[in-house]
Amino acid sequence: MRSTPSPAASPPSSTRAPPASSRPRAAHKDKIGKVYAGRNGIIGALTEDLIDTSRESARTIAALKHTPAGAFGSCRYKLKGLEENRAQYERLIDVFRAHDIGYFFYNGGNDSADTCLKVSQISERLGYPLIAVHVPKTVDNDLAVTDNCPGFGSVAKYVATSMREAAFDVASMAKTSTKVFVLEVMGRHAGWITAAVGMAEDAATPIPLVLLFPEIAFDEARFLAAVDAKVKRFGYCCVGVSEGLKNAAGALMAEAGTKDAFGHAQLGGVGPLDRDAREGEARVQVSLGRGRLPAARGAPHRLEDRSRPQLRRRPGGRRCSRSRDKNAVMPAIVRTSDKPYRWKIAPVPLTRIANVEKMLPRDYITSDGYGITAKARAYLAPLIRGEDFPPFRDGLPQYVRLANVAVPKKLGTEFKI
Amino acid sequence: MRSTPSPAASPPSSTRAPPASSRPRAAHKDKIGKVYAGRNGIIGALTEDLIDTSRESARTIAALKHTPAGAFGSCRYKLKGLEENRAQYERLIDVFRAHDIGYFFYNGGNDSADTCLKVSQISERLGYPLIAVHVPKTVDNDLAVTDNCPGFGSVAKYVATSMREAAFDVASMAKTSTKVFVLEVMGRHAGWITAAVGMAEDAATPIPLVLLFPEIAFDEARFLAAVDAKVKRFGYCCVGVSEGLKNAAGALMAEAGTKDAFGHAQLGGVGPLDRDAREGEARVQVSLGRGRLPAARGAPHRLEDRSRPQLRRRPGGRRCSRSRDKNAVMPAIVRTSDKPYRWKIAPVPLTRIANVEKMLPRDYITSDGYGITAKARAYLAPLIRGEDFPPFRDGLPQYVRLANVAVPKKLGTEFKI
Repeated sequence: MRSTPSPAASPPSSTRAPPASSRPRAAHKDKIGKVYAGRNGIIGALTEDLIDTSRESARTIAALKHTPAGAFGSCRYKLKGLEENRAQYERLIDVFRAHDIGYFFYNGGNDSADTCLKVSQISERLGYPLIAVHVPKTVDNDLAVTDNCPGFGSVAKYVATSMREAAFDVASMAKTSTKVFVLEVMGRHAGWITAAVGMAEDAATPIPLVLLFPEIAFDEARFLAAVDAKVKRFGYCCVGVSEGLKNAAGALMAEAGTKDAFGHAQLGGVGPLDRDAREGEARVQVSLGRGRLPAARGAPHRLEDRSRPQLRRRPGGRRCSRSRDKNAVMPAIVRTSDKPYRWKIAPVPLTRIANVEKMLPRDYITSDGYGITAKARAYLAPLIRGEDFPPFRDGLPQYVRLANVAVPKKLGTEFKI
Repeated sequence: MRSTPSPAASPPSSTRAPPASSRPRAAHKDKIGKVYAGRNGIIGALTEDLIDTSRESARTIAALKHTPAGAFGSCRYKLKGLEENRAQYERLIDVFRAHDIGYFFYNGGNDSADTCLKVSQISERLGYPLIAVHVPKTVDNDLAVTDNCPGFGSVAKYVATSMREAAFDVASMAKTSTKVFVLEVMGRHAGWITAAVGMAEDAATPIPLVLLFPEIAFDEARFLAAVDAKVKRFGYCCVGVSEGLKNAAGALMAEAGTKDAFGHAQLGGVGPLDRDAREGEARVQVSLGRGRLPAARGAPHRLEDRSRPQLRRRPGGRRCSRSRDKNAVMPAIVRTSDKPYRWKIAPVPLTRIANVEKMLPRDYITSDGYGITAKARAYLAPLIRGEDFPPFRDGLPQYVRLANVAVPKKLGTEFKI
């Protein structure tokens, strides 16, 4: 859904002596000077609002592993093309040069990859030597090429768990109360999170589920019949629906008519589905579990196991020769085995990533369009395995906030966003 | 909100030899014969649809501790008064007599207490010897007298955690995206769960929160000004709102115009609040976290610590002399100390419980009406303390379903509900 990018700018080590407290490059002191973060993503880079990550304690940095949300802030800000707004790019070069920034890491989804790709052009087209690398990170899991996007595992685990728990609740009250439960989940165009809802059910825990994928056009009559059949047979039915559900004409069921900064329609609940279910022949009582599943985006209490090195390994820190390093790439996760889950990292050109959405393959969806296949389960299973609970204090998870100390500005000029 | 009652019917031990596998009365074999459960609460009792709990394994019974929802089903079914529908009560006596049931335990909230109180009249007014005991259990936490209602601690922990996590997320994207997050929580009339949202914030984790309690009439202009002030000062604002929020005229903001079996209005989202916030002068972007917080009712992944004996101790199992035991009571939790949390159990007449709603005391709410006081924190703190995670398998919590084996019917007659 939202991109939560943060550029991590790393000047090469040759330019200044690394201070003793600088953690992020602790393992590569000889090669990495400073690691700066842009406050609120590319906006921080444009406005010279940089954060000195060396000012954070090792303990705080370590606590980020279990803390939700973007620690440096984020933005929804679309860079125009180089021809359309050359001043933006010249400003970036001014900032990068002033702080001797040679490496630019931008994490997020499709939109952030687009930003990163545009920034990567600085090197070739404007002559400022820069390596721009996009780091995959989106709950939507819709980045091309990479096996999965860090962040997706947590939300997959969260929605599957929530649906399982809701199913037990609905089953227990179906006799004289709610018979149909609807859980709306994120995923603007691709049904990855919707598919994860399907994991709520397994052989040991059967649940009458109907999933509505954004990839499958919504057919009201068929849907109501499917729900009705489940209610007749099991007494209740649980529906997992994508916020991006569309009708046969391709119109979003939840279309609210407004657009965000990227020109995307703002989605706000599959209201019509609710009405259909209420008025439909199924005559079911609908208890809407809609909304954004508020904690789903940042709910480390149900983290996938981050001890898997996948989420720790970071590209770019190993070699710091700008001439040898790859510009305009994204380190993709390449799965080499489902069971046990094995993977490696491989660079992919950003031109294959930016603005490309990876949809749920049709063979991950059952032929009736309402469930997930064994293939989908094999894909999803390793991504939700393992628990890594955050520390608790007084009954609540303890999360950390960075000091986010600003790097002193070196430019005398302001830049209006 | 919903009552999830389950009558546990226990015939005295003298009438049959207790089978070796009968777990629930394992500690009191000499005094407790069988423990039957009504399938779907009082409906099971009326239709002679009883469950033999001795048919469950000890392991399954133990797993109930971490499993959500009502294991025997539940109902929304209101018993008429004895004068209005004497046949119902005579039917209950037929069923109880046929199965030699002497003790009737009914767990739930206000409505279930009303059912239990009515059933308790069988003994005195219809001459069938019966001890009827109501067991407090409701997420709403609005039962009179008792310090708290088992079930509330879990939902309190869940909503506080969810709001804390959402706050981190919103803070990180407030610069150019969502600035106001609204989390709607359960609690038809009483603001206990709304108050629990306030626990998201503490000294170590400040969060700009605005809480909208059902006990405080909604004032649109004041609310928007409060949100606006938080956004101006902190860059974002988190709103916790009760589904039972009312305007100055006492009308529910979420009034949907329909009623449930108990005559309660069905609540379905504080839609108008959303619109107000969108159109109001605060000019905030609202990301609705509404819906029923699907997992909140039954989310053992965030259980309060059930190792506290409070949730294990059960009334009625100690003495089984119908002549000495108290009829028409509820075992209430009486708090004797906040720090450390200490409590005892005391019987309370059901006439003080049935259909009585305990509202959030005014001195639990800050003077501006939008926050919780230190007194509220002192009350809530021990109820959310401690963690007791369920077992996980393949990344998901493992919950148990009972076999719920039916007791052979002894009556030749049907009873229509």
